Amino acid sequence: MSRYMFKNDYSEGAHPKVLELLQKTNLTQQEAYGLDEYSMQAAALIRDLINMPQADVHFFTGGTQTNLTLISAALRPHEAVLSAHSAHINVHETGAIEATGHKIFQLPGSDGKITTDDLQQAIDFHQDEHYVKPRLVFISNATELGTVYTSRELEQLYDFCQNHGLYLYLDGARLGNAIEATNDLNLKQVAQFTDAFYIGGTKNGALLGEALVITNPNLKRDFRYIMKQRGALIAKGRVVGIQFLALLQDGLYFELAKRANNLAQQIRQAIEQSGFSFLADSPTNQIFPILPDDLIQQLYTRFDFYIWQRYSRDSSVIRLVTSWATDETKVGELIKMIRNYSKQK
Amino acid sequence: MSRYMFKNDYSEGAHPKVLELLQKTNLTQQEAYGLDEYSMQAAALIRDLINMPQADVHFFTGGTQTNLTLISAALRPHEAVLSAHSAHINVHETGAIEATGHKIFQLPGSDGKITTDDLQQAIDFHQDEHYVKPRLVFISNATELGTVYTSRELEQLYDFCQNHGLYLYLDGARLGNAIEATNDLNLKQVAQFTDAFYIGGTKNGALLGEALVITNPNLKRDFRYIMKQRGALIAKGRVVGIQFLALLQDGLYFELAKRANNLAQQIRQAIEQSGFSFLADSPTNQIFPILPDDLIQQLYTRFDFYIWQRYSRDSSVIRLVTSWATDETKVGELIKMIRNYSKQK
Amino acid sequence: MSRYMFKNDYSEGAHPKVLELLQKTNLTQQEAYGLDEYSMQAAALIRDLINMPQADVHFFTGGTQTNLTLISAALRPHEAVLSAHSAHINVHETGAIEATGHKIFQLPGSDGKITTDDLQQAIDFHQDEHYVKPRLVFISNATELGTVYTSRELEQLYDFCQNHGLYLYLDGARLGNAIEATNDLNLKQVAQFTDAFYIGGTKNGALLGEALVITNPNLKRDFRYIMKQRGALIAKGRVVGIQFLALLQDGLYFELAKRANNLAQQIRQAIEQSGFSFLADSPTNQIFPILPDDLIQQLYTRFDFYIWQRYSRDSSVIRLVTSWATDETKVGELIKMIRNYSKQK
Amino acid sequence: MSRYMFKNDYSEGAHPKVLELLQKTNLTQQEAYGLDEYSMQAAALIRDLINMPQADVHFFTGGTQTNLTLISAALRPHEAVLSAHSAHINVHETGAIEATGHKIFQLPGSDGKITTDDLQQAIDFHQDEHYVKPRLVFISNATELGTVYTSRELEQLYDFCQNHGLYLYLDGARLGNAIEATNDLNLKQVAQFTDAFYIGGTKNGALLGEALVITNPNLKRDFRYIMKQRGALIAKGRVVGIQFLALLQDGLYFELAKRANNLAQQIRQAIEQSGFSFLADSPTNQIFPILPDDLIQQLYTRFDFYIWQRYSRDSSVIRLVTSWATDETKVGELIKMIRNYSKQK
Repeated sequence: MSRYMFKNDYSEGAHPKVLELLQKTNLTQQEAYGLDEYSMQAAALIRDLINMPQADVHFFTGGTQTNLTLISAALRPHEAVLSAHSAHINVHETGAIEATGHKIFQLPGSDGKITTDDLQQAIDFHQDEHYVKPRLVFISNATELGTVYTSRELEQLYDFCQNHGLYLYLDGARLGNAIEATNDLNLKQVAQFTDAFYIGGTKNGALLGEALVITNPNLKRDFRYIMKQRGALIAKGRVVGIQFLALLQDGLYFELAKRANNLAQQIRQAIEQSGFSFLADSPTNQIFPILPDDLIQQLYTRFDFYIWQRYSRDSSVIRLVTSWATDETKVGELIKMIRNYSKQK
Repeated sequence: MSRYMFKNDYSEGAHPKVLELLQKTNLTQQEAYGLDEYSMQAAALIRDLINMPQADVHFFTGGTQTNLTLISAALRPHEAVLSAHSAHINVHETGAIEATGHKIFQLPGSDGKITTDDLQQAIDFHQDEHYVKPRLVFISNATELGTVYTSRELEQLYDFCQNHGLYLYLDGARLGNAIEATNDLNLKQVAQFTDAFYIGGTKNGALLGEALVITNPNLKRDFRYIMKQRGALIAKGRVVGIQFLALLQDGLYFELAKRANNLAQQIRQAIEQSGFSFLADSPTNQIFPILPDDLIQQLYTRFDFYIWQRYSRDSSVIRLVTSWATDETKVGELIKMIRNYSKQK
Repeated sequence: MSRYMFKNDYSEGAHPKVLELLQKTNLTQQEAYGLDEYSMQAAALIRDLINMPQADVHFFTGGTQTNLTLISAALRPHEAVLSAHSAHINVHETGAIEATGHKIFQLPGSDGKITTDDLQQAIDFHQDEHYVKPRLVFISNATELGTVYTSRELEQLYDFCQNHGLYLYLDGARLGNAIEATNDLNLKQVAQFTDAFYIGGTKNGALLGEALVITNPNLKRDFRYIMKQRGALIAKGRVVGIQFLALLQDGLYFELAKRANNLAQQIRQAIEQSGFSFLADSPTNQIFPILPDDLIQQLYTRFDFYIWQRYSRDSSVIRLVTSWATDETKVGELIKMIRNYSKQK
Repeated sequence: MSRYMFKNDYSEGAHPKVLELLQKTNLTQQEAYGLDEYSMQAAALIRDLINMPQADVHFFTGGTQTNLTLISAALRPHEAVLSAHSAHINVHETGAIEATGHKIFQLPGSDGKITTDDLQQAIDFHQDEHYVKPRLVFISNATELGTVYTSRELEQLYDFCQNHGLYLYLDGARLGNAIEATNDLNLKQVAQFTDAFYIGGTKNGALLGEALVITNPNLKRDFRYIMKQRGALIAKGRVVGIQFLALLQDGLYFELAKRANNLAQQIRQAIEQSGFSFLADSPTNQIFPILPDDLIQQLYTRFDFYIWQRYSRDSSVIRLVTSWATDETKVGELIKMIRNYSKQK
């Protein structure tokens, strides 16, 4: 019997409603390269949701592609990105940003988040033309460690960026999870306090796809050229547009994120009650408990997940991820196994 | 009433069998980033079809992405691509190859094809370290003008490349159409006479996706790193793998290409019989008739297509494209309109 | 006995006055990276000569470096260069521009020059975001074939560029030769009818060095960052500044160019009088006579030069280059040899 | 009266013997682009000094240019550099390496040096194709902080690199200073324990110029192509070749470095005796004393130097640099001023 995966939020295909709309629209003839009716409707829907009729919306097939396209479009050759050292672009994208010619200057911080103090220090460090010039701040929400920026924190970062000639770009691979995890953040605020951001589909119910929203007019110019150059302008642009239509109509996107968060938080609560702690304080669908190695071995007989890092001689951090598709029964089994271990000790 | 499109071969979604398999496999849990069972099965199927158990197969979401990833993986900084001046990478990919740092040296030729003479002249031109160094020959089959390389022609190009330290890479966005258009070419030969090639899905029945096949071991090393760096390693790799499984099982891929060719050739025959000629002699699903402007105007009231270029004061070249999804009734209506025009003159 | 070189205009070191000033200033302490007094004086002198107090002047160690730095500073990723197909950047710089990510779209023309018609056709060809976007026009004066743009021609190109959102950049590796070859061009006009240009030192009496002049404010921003990034900001910037001071004080630069032109034109006249013709009509210090192969063989016993290309079964084009350092006696010997050959036939 | 500079080791022109040889050879005709007799002699001399007849030697005009050319020639797109966080390429070259597409993964360490432990941890961190692939280790000797690797340390790093598929590249901008600062290192060992390194001329008596030595055959292939592409192949290659000939004949290069070291160490001794300490323990020509701000203010009235960083509320780190050209009298005055301050307290 194969082990049930809490390995990531892209282990399954798409939410049934997404497939349904692909099916239903399948044989209509449409313009290519994102100029189809569905992509346009989906873009209009997003503009409505953020209440910004002037925003540009572009659809991509993946997050790395979205990040490298936006960033290479935004920067001149000597301009650099500032990000948390743990940022996806700094660690897990095989140097995709550097491959477009730009340095990432990494900021400290243990919870995946950055602060205006970090930004100020980075600016102070870069003195003249012998240094790269900081120009774009990259954050993700939720972060790589499942932590969340509140609207207040976003606003502070954005104000700082505005005052220092920096763009603020938000990677929203798990944006639904961030928004659902706090009472203090909605999509309008995300749009208001960034220059560009993307709404991640791949990790929240789509087959594949991300919706990039550009609100700063400076970043809009000739953007489709850069997309095409980076291989991001797909012939059947409809394929992503249709999926976002399915996800964003009737709030399905947020429902799915909420469900994923809830399941992860049930596991979190059980782990806390069993006396274990966490690498970071994550209210979203990724949690990073620090567990005894023998418990991890037990769990591993039934479940699949990543061992994130060694923590002590006999304990490690693991990553557990839930999604729109996670089986509640399996969540129950996982929780039970943890509680049993705890009782037996 | 909207006009029926003969504009391209990606106006509709996917062939129903493709959607069906996506549906059927949707809720199984799979490894990410192309390591899922379906991608592996599809890769194995391709290796069988070309009878090369050692070939590497990688799945992409689009052709520009495939081209730029393979080419940037193959070349050192000073090495250049040789291609027809009309090649997609030279004209219609917004400088995607140059954006990875490499020059395209363009070869002459009016039918979209290149010859060993062209290659020899290019090599003679590049004398020393003040010139780029030719290293990879890019061809597409079918070409941008719908023309086709036979297996004999491929073999000659490949032999030349082998003897001159050049890689031969074939863009197969419309490979099915090329193979079905001649008795003299099959997939095994394409694999045999190239160092790498891709089987295009987007233009032949997939939602999106291309299958890159690497047969030359030199090109295989660390290839997934380069894919990730270029944003081509998608989280749900299964999405493309499943589609190729659907297309390549039971020969559906070739059936669809054959159907598209047949419909285009019906139109071609009618046009010829009506006394008109063509920009290039295309046996595939793209044809480029030279038509009187008033006929074009008539056709344009009922059909949508590209006007390719002006040909004379009162005639132009148009492009007509058919696909797996083209409605035969509409083909009939188009033919009738052309014949009627011809009779009335 | 070694053959005397008419091979290029950089076979010797520097004009004695250049070495003299390097010697004289050698032990003063100066700021680094081009902020020394000599570089500043040389820049001020250039601003005076062109009567543009706002122009920016930057010193480089070579022409390829100057070209790639200016061009990569000027363009966004999808923007392209338009140049003659014979342009140095398109042929003889090993893809230096493409290595910064930008396509060169090559224009036709047999004499190394381009016209506004060429530019108009290039603009018409590039229709939308599937094409690169033309943004910078590259010319050189004198051209690769020794031909010259007059001020009237420059003005026409510049007006066209101004009206079409294009930058006009002039590579002046042999700018002195161009200016001295026509009554109709001076340095002020070069500055007036371009957005940026460089005054070449390497080929006209310097040890090494080029002076880039930027007159368009859009191109000035953060330029020293890009220089540093490309390895062009040398620690002892004084080394180039001092040389331009020596060359531009008292008009030495133009005297040297005039001398080189005169010597080449003496050879040209003798060749014409001997009944031979030329690949291009060059009034500068590079000439491209078409000579019988047996005469070329004779010349080659005493002189060194490039054989440019085969012209017919028994004749070839050679390149003869003179410079500030060319020995007049050797010019006389060369002429005599040509005349003798001619008489004997 | 202007302040005397201890600001860097490139405040003056060239050592008189360098200018003398430029003068003496000035009017000989030579081949271009580094194929002149002088460059060849200088290369042969270097091969003799390191006793490696197969080594390749290439001359450059500056260090950033040398670094970016060697590194971009060595790496495939996904391969990365490992360096100290304080490395020149990581901080002070405006992202020159990233502009060629490669990430620098920075290692910890407070004295500008790296260890095999640092390298091991970096390798362990980079797990698969989602990370860049470490491929080249960059060190400088002397380092940015004036510290020095001994031959034993170099050998350990090199052995580690050999065992882990890494290139070891040494930036020798101040290589003479490193070699003269320890009994335990000579040029042969530098060549033996690296895959490539450069001998810095700019900071040790040349007008400008660095000599890159490539000992690993893998790094030699087509290297002149990459040089040309990066604008590093200068027309009058002789200019750098001649200077290295002057510097390396009769050991002048090492004499100059020794002199610079000695002067700096005299200052260092005086500072130590006055009771002050240092940021790093530098035996070379750059020292980083931590001084009271009021002493710094006093020194600043007579001398120019960089204030490196604030150290405490009332003290800062300054950088003092000596060179082949430093005036001993001024060293005496500086020392006296420091001793006087100390006595008065």
